[in-house]
Amino acid sequence: MRDFLPADVRRREYVIGVIKEVYERYGFEPLETPAVENIETLMGKYGEEGNQLIFKILKRGEHEKTGEADLALRYDLTVPLARVVAEYRDKLPKFFKRYQIQPVWRADRPARGRFREFYQCDVDILGSRSMLVEAEICAAASDVLTRLGFNDFAVRINHRHALTGVLQAAGVANEKHDLALIALDKLDKIGRSGVEKEFAERGIDAAAGVRLLDFFAALAGLDHAAEVAVGEDVSQKRRALNVAIIGRLVEFVGDNELGARGIDELRSILNFAEAEGIGSRIEIDPSLARGLSYYTGAIMEINVKDLPGSLGGGGRYDNLVGMFLGEAVPACGFSLGLERIIVVMTEREMFPNALLTSPADVMISLWDQTSRADSVALAHELREAALRVDLYPDADKIGKQFKYASAREIPFVAILGDDERARGEVALKDMRSGEQRSVKRESVAEEIRKKL
Amino acid sequence: MRDFLPADVRRREYVIGVIKEVYERYGFEPLETPAVENIETLMGKYGEEGNQLIFKILKRGEHEKTGEADLALRYDLTVPLARVVAEYRDKLPKFFKRYQIQPVWRADRPARGRFREFYQCDVDILGSRSMLVEAEICAAASDVLTRLGFNDFAVRINHRHALTGVLQAAGVANEKHDLALIALDKLDKIGRSGVEKEFAERGIDAAAGVRLLDFFAALAGLDHAAEVAVGEDVSQKRRALNVAIIGRLVEFVGDNELGARGIDELRSILNFAEAEGIGSRIEIDPSLARGLSYYTGAIMEINVKDLPGSLGGGGRYDNLVGMFLGEAVPACGFSLGLERIIVVMTEREMFPNALLTSPADVMISLWDQTSRADSVALAHELREAALRVDLYPDADKIGKQFKYASAREIPFVAILGDDERARGEVALKDMRSGEQRSVKRESVAEEIRKKL
Repeated sequence: MRDFLPADVRRREYVIGVIKEVYERYGFEPLETPAVENIETLMGKYGEEGNQLIFKILKRGEHEKTGEADLALRYDLTVPLARVVAEYRDKLPKFFKRYQIQPVWRADRPARGRFREFYQCDVDILGSRSMLVEAEICAAASDVLTRLGFNDFAVRINHRHALTGVLQAAGVANEKHDLALIALDKLDKIGRSGVEKEFAERGIDAAAGVRLLDFFAALAGLDHAAEVAVGEDVSQKRRALNVAIIGRLVEFVGDNELGARGIDELRSILNFAEAEGIGSRIEIDPSLARGLSYYTGAIMEINVKDLPGSLGGGGRYDNLVGMFLGEAVPACGFSLGLERIIVVMTEREMFPNALLTSPADVMISLWDQTSRADSVALAHELREAALRVDLYPDADKIGKQFKYASAREIPFVAILGDDERARGEVALKDMRSGEQRSVKRESVAEEIRKKL
Repeated sequence: MRDFLPADVRRREYVIGVIKEVYERYGFEPLETPAVENIETLMGKYGEEGNQLIFKILKRGEHEKTGEADLALRYDLTVPLARVVAEYRDKLPKFFKRYQIQPVWRADRPARGRFREFYQCDVDILGSRSMLVEAEICAAASDVLTRLGFNDFAVRINHRHALTGVLQAAGVANEKHDLALIALDKLDKIGRSGVEKEFAERGIDAAAGVRLLDFFAALAGLDHAAEVAVGEDVSQKRRALNVAIIGRLVEFVGDNELGARGIDELRSILNFAEAEGIGSRIEIDPSLARGLSYYTGAIMEINVKDLPGSLGGGGRYDNLVGMFLGEAVPACGFSLGLERIIVVMTEREMFPNALLTSPADVMISLWDQTSRADSVALAHELREAALRVDLYPDADKIGKQFKYASAREIPFVAILGDDERARGEVALKDMRSGEQRSVKRESVAEEIRKKL
């Protein structure tokens, strides 16, 4: 678990501020739930491994001795959403669009870049099966990243039914689908012959395996064809590729009904994404799997080239949010990887400079005991003018005060010496240039603001 | 523990936003610490009752069976601050001015208005013994309340040494000070004779008790005298009263050195507060005690007339923050009662109206299947123009869509009917007046913004 010192908090709040602003523009509303849930609400919802990673809280008072737990720390934001949906059904709109940015806790073994307390940052739209929802979710997440300064990301999209259709059309037995996908996922690392070997070990029909690998090999070939066709314009190339891939999918799944329906939905999402202005961001990727367990429709993931793993991911999961309600609630959601976004932005130096430096715009120094109250009054005036003002608390030597301001990267120091006070002026030192000059007291705020 | 639905979150974030903005203007920097601390960090820091109210977290994995706890939930923000000061000493400035707004957890019996998860909202200045610090803290807290719209609050200030001086000058034995203050605190409720009886029961010297009660009775008389002297101007009356009370304190403590020093510091704070522009907010209150345990100097509390209890309180506590460092670190802090502020603001209807109503500025309706992509495109255009836009996801009957927007208090609905689309226009319905008219598509954003 981590402490966030001031510079860390500023970076985090900057990112969270952009996320909130963008999500609100898309009509999402904020939700917050308590850190602590009843233990029964969480147990059994995340598999056996999840059960072990949940932090459990002892009963209080005399029951503490029993060693029993009745509460637990929030493990994700989806189960609390499901609880809220069941608990406040009448108070929530039919299409509940919520965002939630809160910490979760997992008793993972601490490792580099992995923390036991970390923030999740989820948006979900409940209540509709329209593919508009998928497009809105992708557009909102893209918009967040664009506004943060990312310009090289792609939104990869696939559909669980399309995936099933492809596997069935290839002839992979239904019960082997998960195993086939795990092996297929290693194609880049172990090559075609490596995957074929794994298929054999996992008991996947050899001919089906070959058909599957041929299909994906042919898709990889489309990349070059698209470049030849439209040239190097990345946006146009992506659009051409998406159309070509959809064509190949239709061809390959043939009369597989589930697959055809999935592909239809992908086509809808693609059309709406174009209207959302993110057509050139989308990559239809028939190999995207995202751990199939609870997704029921489209799945998506956002990646940048130089980062293994994703900046976020999500999809449609129509059978989860209604778990405490006892009925299916259509839902589609996306989770931005806040911690990862911050890591990448720090590495790439994407944070605005002003954010990383100074805790104040100006520091008022303390000249001597007799002028102290006047220094306080100056601080008051400059704060009224909406500046961030620090006030040095002790009448230390002025050199020491300058050094302090300089170490904290405060750009200006104001000094109320006897001469300046007599003339109704303030000596203002620019700590970056070292230049110091007298300024009329009523112009100090303006003078500082001009040079910030 | 509570869920915060969208309207609740908006209210909380509004208040927190004002607090942050004001505190940053005073040069405070944000700090965040994890929800979970090592159990030894917290145990023994809050007395026996505190130990019992701490939520304790079971060891993980195979140790879970032992029923032992090794972690605990944050109980306040002061002990984590002390830990941070010890852990990051070299990274923190000499005068560390931090604010921290985070939840804490206490296993209190749940009761009306009391929650097991609640936010604390602390500012502290570490590293200086200057009375400027007290004045800055009071001014920042006052500024927050003023900006939130409170105009009837008073900042009551006393000093632990002044209090000791008064009790010693009256002749109350040192070991009876706490008991005397507890009895004195009931003066309003049980009257002078009641307090005298309690003094007797607690073994306080009768003559000392009489001197003490005479002193406070005389102070109460000053109130009327000040009104006679300066008239009904509340600010002037407060200032006159403060001067008169300081005079009486000086007189009463006489040559009691500790008391005189405390009164001197009160006078300094009063002078600086005047320079901070909050002179008329201050009430020197020699009876203010605030549970004496860890305060070492000035103590303060902010009250409004119609609320029992306070909106916040704090003081100087020079011996606490250095606890993990093994040396004294001068400190003065103030804690705003966030939950209480929100309750009062809700009761008094002090929240801006815009905050409580709509989740979006406009809802785009869905006319039919063929125009869907165009509705999405319109949403995109209006979001680019920085409006908050909701998009109805299904092509339901238009009456149903209107009803939905109306229930959610969205002020405008845009409709892209066939005629409007053919003319490059949008039908815009003002949900408050019911008026509907056609607007050129490129003017829709401007039209909405004009009427928001």
